[in-house]
Amino acid sequence: MAHYGYFNSTIAPVDQLAVGITDLGLLRGYGLFDYFLTYNGRPFQWDWYWERFQNSASRMHLPLPLSKDRTYAILMDLLDRGDATDTAFRFVMTGGYSADSISVEQPNLLILAESIHPVPAVQYEKGIKVILDDYVREMAEVKSTDYKRVILMAEAIRSAGASDLLYQKGGEISELSRSNFFLVKGNQIVTPDRHILHGITRRTVIQLAQRDFQVEERPVLLSELYDADEAFTTSSTKKVLPITQIGELTIGDGHVGPVSRSLLAQFNEVIETW
Amino acid sequence: MAHYGYFNSTIAPVDQLAVGITDLGLLRGYGLFDYFLTYNGRPFQWDWYWERFQNSASRMHLPLPLSKDRTYAILMDLLDRGDATDTAFRFVMTGGYSADSISVEQPNLLILAESIHPVPAVQYEKGIKVILDDYVREMAEVKSTDYKRVILMAEAIRSAGASDLLYQKGGEISELSRSNFFLVKGNQIVTPDRHILHGITRRTVIQLAQRDFQVEERPVLLSELYDADEAFTTSSTKKVLPITQIGELTIGDGHVGPVSRSLLAQFNEVIETW
Repeated sequence: MAHYGYFNSTIAPVDQLAVGITDLGLLRGYGLFDYFLTYNGRPFQWDWYWERFQNSASRMHLPLPLSKDRTYAILMDLLDRGDATDTAFRFVMTGGYSADSISVEQPNLLILAESIHPVPAVQYEKGIKVILDDYVREMAEVKSTDYKRVILMAEAIRSAGASDLLYQKGGEISELSRSNFFLVKGNQIVTPDRHILHGITRRTVIQLAQRDFQVEERPVLLSELYDADEAFTTSSTKKVLPITQIGELTIGDGHVGPVSRSLLAQFNEVIETW
Repeated sequence: MAHYGYFNSTIAPVDQLAVGITDLGLLRGYGLFDYFLTYNGRPFQWDWYWERFQNSASRMHLPLPLSKDRTYAILMDLLDRGDATDTAFRFVMTGGYSADSISVEQPNLLILAESIHPVPAVQYEKGIKVILDDYVREMAEVKSTDYKRVILMAEAIRSAGASDLLYQKGGEISELSRSNFFLVKGNQIVTPDRHILHGITRRTVIQLAQRDFQVEERPVLLSELYDADEAFTTSSTKKVLPITQIGELTIGDGHVGPVSRSLLAQFNEVIETW
């Protein structure tokens, strides 16, 4: 399937887009991104994603070259040029081209339409395994392009038969490598509130969960894993994905629990009618 | 001046080189680099730079696509195509193009010839000012492309009238943003030995200093700044550059000291006869 992308005022097929080699994202890791899906041809939670992207840009001192409305028009243009009703969008904004390889002059902004890679159904049925990693992301609140850690740990994840990392530092849990973390215990749902990227799916799920549960956003400790009934992770791609094993520890009875199942069903309702 | 670069088996003028937008260096910050100069047409300390680049690549699980000899031949080719006797070389190796934006398939390797940007003479005469920053680089031993911090702090550095950051964490000094740190106290020269990139200029200067001084590689504390006679920083571009002010603290009598001066002279002798 052909996808189109926008790069500094030009729209072209994605495989024809390229970035010059003095880009500070490439040379110095100075970049941020965002990623979201459309449902029924409309960007899901667009207001929230734009707000977050704006906030990341501001925290990295990069002026946004496009207004919200202009950006939305570009998204619709890219979607129209593709041959599917829905798509994934990736924003990548870097420090731009730099004559001295270190000073920011003007950001480079890429907006890419991409295929959606849904999570295999079996992972929703069985839950996933993650492994603990003694790590906390630098500037976790900003969706920077810094994902070195999970790529570096790819082999460790694979050899443990796991799907991802669960970051903890000093016994405090933060997040998975690209998604947020929740624990369920009775009528209570807890999720870390610091050293995390504030996920838009996390925010959506918290709103849904508040109708039936007591939801607490607060520091979550490793020790709380031992008596949790359920655990799950949220992201735009994963939606509400149950976690049934964390390292050697089985969560609850090791099966996908009713709360995870119900929240996934509620989330699916939201996107179906988006 | 026209510079040439090598990218995945192709040699072309640098401004014609571009990287596709699925590169993991760009999308995920998964990249490493190295940087060195030639003197008298020969790459300075080539054996040591190659060893370090190999080591960084291995730590990031990226297989080097070229042998040492083949790489050297490319360097000579790039130098020949330029119009100067000497040049700077930058290696950039990333996780390569990735279909799913996260899995490493085959690295991308860039080798660029660049203009040398010498430090202004006044900085050697007066010394530079740096400001302290409560930070330690992640995987400092690997020359990754992660230089977010110093770009993020550019305005703070400028507004303090400083040239760079000096990283410290919990009272322990590590390094400047792109160079190593030394203190002089009487006949003793100390330099941090952990949470640092092991600079090639650092290694060269230690060898020179050992002829006349007692050199210690060990953790260096902030408290040691107060009674130091001199401070300086080393890198391929900076050579031996005196630091006369650290935040509000004046080092020694605030003038460039005889040890920094002598080590710079000795370093200049080494490169003149390289």
